[in-house]
Order: sequence, then C-alpha cells, then structure tokens
Amino acid sequence: MTTPTRIPAEPYTYAKSQEAFARAFRVIPSGIYGHQGPSEGCYIPQTAFPLFSSRAEGTHFWDLDGNKYIDYMCGYGPNVLGYRDPDVDAAAQAQAKLEDVVTIPSTVMVDFAELLVDTVACADWAFFAKNGGDVTTLAIMTARAATGRKKIVFFNGFYHGADAWTQKMDYPGVLEEDVANNLYVDFNDFPALEKLFSEHRGEIAGLIAQPYMHGNFFDQIWPDEGYWQKVRKLCDDHGVVLIIDDVRAGFRLDLAGSDHFFGFTADLICFCKALANGYNVSALCGRADLKDVVSSISYTGSYWMSAVPFAAGIACITKMKQLDTPALFHELGTELTTGLVAAAADHGFTLVASGAPSLFYLRLADDDSLMLHQEWIAECVQRGVFFTSHHNHFLNASLSHEDVARTIEIAHDAFTVLRARHPEQS
Amino acid sequence: MTTPTRIPAEPYTYAKSQEAFARAFRVIPSGIYGHQGPSEGCYIPQTAFPLFSSRAEGTHFWDLDGNKYIDYMCGYGPNVLGYRDPDVDAAAQAQAKLEDVVTIPSTVMVDFAELLVDTVACADWAFFAKNGGDVTTLAIMTARAATGRKKIVFFNGFYHGADAWTQKMDYPGVLEEDVANNLYVDFNDFPALEKLFSEHRGEIAGLIAQPYMHGNFFDQIWPDEGYWQKVRKLCDDHGVVLIIDDVRAGFRLDLAGSDHFFGFTADLICFCKALANGYNVSALCGRADLKDVVSSISYTGSYWMSAVPFAAGIACITKMKQLDTPALFHELGTELTTGLVAAAADHGFTLVASGAPSLFYLRLADDDSLMLHQEWIAECVQRGVFFTSHHNHFLNASLSHEDVARTIEIAHDAFTVLRARHPEQS
Repeated sequence: MTTPTRIPAEPYTYAKSQEAFARAFRVIPSGIYGHQGPSEGCYIPQTAFPLFSSRAEGTHFWDLDGNKYIDYMCGYGPNVLGYRDPDVDAAAQAQAKLEDVVTIPSTVMVDFAELLVDTVACADWAFFAKNGGDVTTLAIMTARAATGRKKIVFFNGFYHGADAWTQKMDYPGVLEEDVANNLYVDFNDFPALEKLFSEHRGEIAGLIAQPYMHGNFFDQIWPDEGYWQKVRKLCDDHGVVLIIDDVRAGFRLDLAGSDHFFGFTADLICFCKALANGYNVSALCGRADLKDVVSSISYTGSYWMSAVPFAAGIACITKMKQLDTPALFHELGTELTTGLVAAAADHGFTLVASGAPSLFYLRLADDDSLMLHQEWIAECVQRGVFFTSHHNHFLNASLSHEDVARTIEIAHDAFTVLRARHPEQS
Repeated sequence: MTTPTRIPAEPYTYAKSQEAFARAFRVIPSGIYGHQGPSEGCYIPQTAFPLFSSRAEGTHFWDLDGNKYIDYMCGYGPNVLGYRDPDVDAAAQAQAKLEDVVTIPSTVMVDFAELLVDTVACADWAFFAKNGGDVTTLAIMTARAATGRKKIVFFNGFYHGADAWTQKMDYPGVLEEDVANNLYVDFNDFPALEKLFSEHRGEIAGLIAQPYMHGNFFDQIWPDEGYWQKVRKLCDDHGVVLIIDDVRAGFRLDLAGSDHFFGFTADLICFCKALANGYNVSALCGRADLKDVVSSISYTGSYWMSAVPFAAGIACITKMKQLDTPALFHELGTELTTGLVAAAADHGFTLVASGAPSLFYLRLADDDSLMLHQEWIAECVQRGVFFTSHHNHFLNASLSHEDVARTIEIAHDAFTVLRARHPEQS
C-alpha cells in the first residue's frame, strides 16, 4: 500500500438537517420523496446523509449545517455547466424581464427548437414539455399512433420515468393494464431480440432504450460492437419505432445525441436533464416522418411554453458547444475513476468503475451484500464528496482537476476508515 | 340600443407573428401545439390570432407586432397576481441567488408544504411535482393503492390533464387498456352516480372531479344544492377516494380549496396553475390517512424539488391572502360579465356568461354553429381584449376597474362590427 499516511478528518454531522427533516416528515410524504430522499438517494443511513442543501455554486453545494461538498450527482443530472452558471443565469434573467409563462408563447421557443434541430443529428423537429417522463410517454404514444400497434419493447434494467407504464405490475398504484403491452429482453442479446420481434410480428409499436445500460443496482453495460446497427436494421425491417431515452446521458456523451455517439440514428430521442442547466424543460426530438403523428396527439401542459427555460437552454447548449463538454467530461471522468480504483487497490479493496466516465457507476466488489459499498459512500459523503450508492453519477463543467485530486484524497481517507473497521475484508 | 356611437378601431394585424409561425411550423409539430396554438387556443382563423408574445406585465401582454392586450387567459391560469409580479419575482430571485435544482432539496420545500397545510382546509400534507397532470395521475395511483381497486369515476366533460388515462380510446396514441377502468357519469345526476356505485360495488378506487364543471365547449355547471355533500357521503359509504382536481379553479374560488368553497372535504386535492404565479410547480395535498399510501408509490422527477418555484409559491400564496384575491376576482368578474352581457343585448345579441366570475365562460347564443361566437372573439382579440372561444377565462389581481371598463368598450366595438356584418342575426 503506497498511500501517504494521513489521518482522516472527523465526519460531518447534520443536526440542522435532522431537525428540518423532522419538520418535513410531518407535512410531506416520506419527508423527502423519490430519488432525492435519504433512502433512495444514497441508500446510506439517514444519520450519514445531509438531507437538505442551503446553497450551491459551480461544482459545490453546502448543506444546512454548513458542510461543503464536491457534488458528483449534479441535481441528478441537470447541473451540467456548474450550479448558477453566470451565462445561463444571465440569459434566463434577461428573458424573465420580458416574460415567462404567457397566454401565447415567445419566439424563443422557436429559436430553441431551431438550435436543437441544428445540434442533434436525428432531430428534424422538437417538442417541449417539463419532465423527462412527459417526453418518454409522448414517444410511446407517438410510436403507437404511427404504427397502430400496442406493444413496447424494454431492456431489462430500464428506467424511463415514473409513469405507470414504466413501472412493474406489483408496484403500488400500478395496474396490470398499465403494463399489459410491455415486452422485456436483455440488452446486447440480439438473438433474443430477434426472437421477440418474430414472435410479436406486426404487434410491436416501439422499442425504448437508454443508449447504453446505465440503470440502478448494476454495473453499466456498453453496447457490443455492431449491436445498435443490428437493432436499427431490425426495427426498420419490422416497422418498429426506435426510441432513445437520452434523459440521463443526453449531451454528456455527444452533443449530437447519444445515438450519434454510438453510430446509429434514432427515430425519436428524449432529452431533459442537461438541456438547460437546471431550468425546467424537456424535449422530444425526432425524424421528419413522425412530426405529423406527434401533432395528432392531444398533449399539453400548463407551463410547457414558458420562455425562461428556453432562453436558458439556448445559453446552455451554446456554452456546451464552446467548452466541448463531452470531451471535458471524458477527460475528467477518466482521471477520477482511474484515481478512485487505484485508491481502493492501495487499501486492498476492489472498486469497479463502469460506463461512460461522464456518467460513471461505482461498485465496491469486496462483499456480496451492498453494505460495504454503502459504508464507503457514507464515509465519502461525510467528508465532503457527494457520491451515491447504486446509481450513476454525473459530471459538470465546473469540476476542476484540483477537485478531482481532492476527491481522490477523500476517497483514500474513506478507505482508510473502512480498512480500520474491516481489517479482514478483501 | 343605448350604445354610444363610436367607430371601432381597425383590427390588429400580425405580420411578424405570421413570419415567426412559418419558422415554427418547420421545426415544431403543429408550429405551436396544444392549448396555446392557434387552433385550440381560440378556434378563430390563424389570421385573426396573434400567435407569439414578446413581453408581459400586470394584466397585459404585447404580441410580436407590438399589439397590446388586456389578457383574460392569464397563461391559461398561472398568472394570478399579474405578470412579473414584483413580490413573487423578488422572492424567486433571492432564492435563485442561493440555489435552485440541487442534489438534495432546500428547506424552502418544507416551508411551502407547511404553508399549504395551513392554508388548504383538507390538506394534512403536500407532495410537489411539475404538471397538473403529474398530480392528477398520482391521485388516481394513490386511490388505487389505498383501495386495491381499479375503477375511477369521471364526470362527462372532464379535463384532468393529457395523460393517456384521461383521454378517450379513439384518440391517437391511446390504448383501450389506458381507459379500460374509467367509468363516466353526468355531473349533478346523483341517482345515476348512486346506480354506478352500486353496479360497481367494491370495484371503484376513486372519483375524480373538478369542483364544478368548467370544461370546454359547454356552459359551466354549478353543483346543485347539497350535491357535493351527498357525493361525499356516498364515497364514504363505498370506501371511494374523493379526488378534487383544483388545477383550474384552485385559489381563484377559495384560498382554502374549492371543496371548502362548496362546503365539503376532499380526500385528495390537486393544485397547479395559480400556485406560484407562473413559476413551475404543482401539488397534491390530502388527508392524513393517505400520506403513507403516497409514500409507497414510486413517483419522482428531475426538477421536482427545485427551490425557486417553492419560494415563488410562498410569496404568491402570502400575497393572495393579503389581497383576498377570491373576493377581488368575484367583484371584478361580476362587473365584467354583467357589462359584457349588457353590451351584447345593446346590439341585439344574447351572450351567456356562466360559472364563477373568476373563471367565467362565454357563449354567444344567437346561432347554433360556433362560428358567430368565434367571429366575435376574433373581433375582440384584434382590438386588444384577449378572450378565447369555448374555454373558461381566468382573472388576475392586476386587472383594474379601468381595464374592465375598457374591455366592455371594446366588446361593444366588436358587437358593432358583428351587427354590421350580420344585420339579420338575432
């Protein structure tokens, strides 16, 4: 072990967050629900989790007790340039001085659509909504309307939002009817996909997929060489609409879309998180021949044409192009994950980092339960590195080489603590 | 006819909007989709519709050609205090200087939940999302999870968002499975509702309803005396969750919820539009015994805990309380609709104004087609009063008595034009 000897700092404590959580628990279901809550957020004990933030800037946020974090979750994706990016915020504020949610839209919507059509390889048009789930839902409705068929193919381990059709039959509030037309198959198993398409010939409306598997609770899975090209051809042969859910990966792998990154062309592509650096907008883009089908669908929302997020989106995409964020993320992410894996090894642990460096997934492989991994995550979080358990991470463009070096240092400290606590574990 | 003689101004023209719409049509499905588009927005010819706005303030917006409007659509509801309200905007900007969409939420979420629990009579808790449809969907999932039953009762003429379960089987992209568990009945027909509950005893999870019928293409329908109290008891007797969709009416009838206005208590209530004066947030509130059921449902979104809309919502509700907006809207709306009906009569037309004055619906009853009504709406819009056809209107607190007087004057002008064009119509 070559680690410099260094005594890990005392872990953060969260008295104010705990008090606020007690208040939250009285008036909000679960206190904090969904992916930002203490259970789903990190799967670490609530006592090791900061719960509430008080401010954010660049690649950092501060919790309610004043503890500072290098943030590798980026609001679960939206923070792509850095919190409170001055260029995006200036564009948003300038628009806000004119108008935001008005009875008829601003032409900034058209400007944003034109920019997406220019930027995203498969996009002949753009349709805007608010949630990632709004546009994955619109995508499957479009596939059904275009084909007159019902069935949708999913890859096992998928996540396409929280609408009932994307959930499982035994989940609370979900009916068998909601998922009756879902078909499931393993990613990268092309023969299984071919078999499924044959068995359901003429019944499959669409295939919805992340550009590569970056789900929760498993190492990320890269597409086999030539896999997507074969899938593309199979969809063409069967008249199946190929939908790429780029909500998580979009603009972090390739500004022209993650289908472009992998060398194929989607029929429909769904964007959300990285679209406007946290300003609230999602988009469905697609090929020309599906534009009129989308027009035929009854689909709208109260805030969907708000102008401020469009202005923010234009500034965000423009700046991502200037910075070439995908290249930057690849460089920083590779530096980080290489350093983390080496740090683990220095302490006799095996850390597996999988997937794109911009969306890296971590797994401590030294026990079969998830507990050792969660313990290590807790030690990192409590020393100022906000990692998460069993979910991909996200990079932002404000992350510096110094932040990466500091992160690796803290990871060393966390492994030191872990090793002292589990002297025999390997 | 007692109208002062006055020559109506020349109608507005929209050259710049038309040019922008041609651009939009190339890169956006329908150019402008949904309720803000030229077809669904006013059902008047596109040439009589301004299409794009350029700025907004108070009760006015300006279109791309510089034409000014007194706006009675208020962004289809969100504008409840006036566009760019200084108090709401100041609260939002102060929050934005700290943080918005971060990995863990701000305690401003808790503050907002506490304020809603204090304000809304039936609310023991609040769950936040983005679209009105997010919370109507969560409401029916909650009803199903709470009861272990499938069926949902709707009142004919309903609108509860754009999710597939709220649509009709023959709509593009909608499957029979999406609506297989929907039951429909007429509002105010209590015997029919009793019969439906008996026929489906033990099968009905929830009843979802607007607090009174304020749908599209029909006069608004007020609940009969005692109707809601009977419905409430029937739901209790059958163990059915009573869901009030207060997305349109919420905070315009009664700051304690529209169920409170009509003297009953909902189990779940859905809010969106008037919650934060245009900042993007929706909320499901409900009774204590359903809180754990909501917690059990897998439901989350990328931007759902953004702090800026929560800060805006607190400022918005606080100001609505200070101004007593429901009383103000009742006064202004009554003044307006009384004046409009009288103006129609002065020109020999019959205008029917129905529903709550804050959400008034207009119908010109002098022909059975919808054309004469749309023609009058077009003449109003083209002279600076933004009314709409076949949809309820919305008031905001920046509307003045002078604006109302000016509106009635323009309505007179529009009737003058209509009478000259249709001398025989009555």
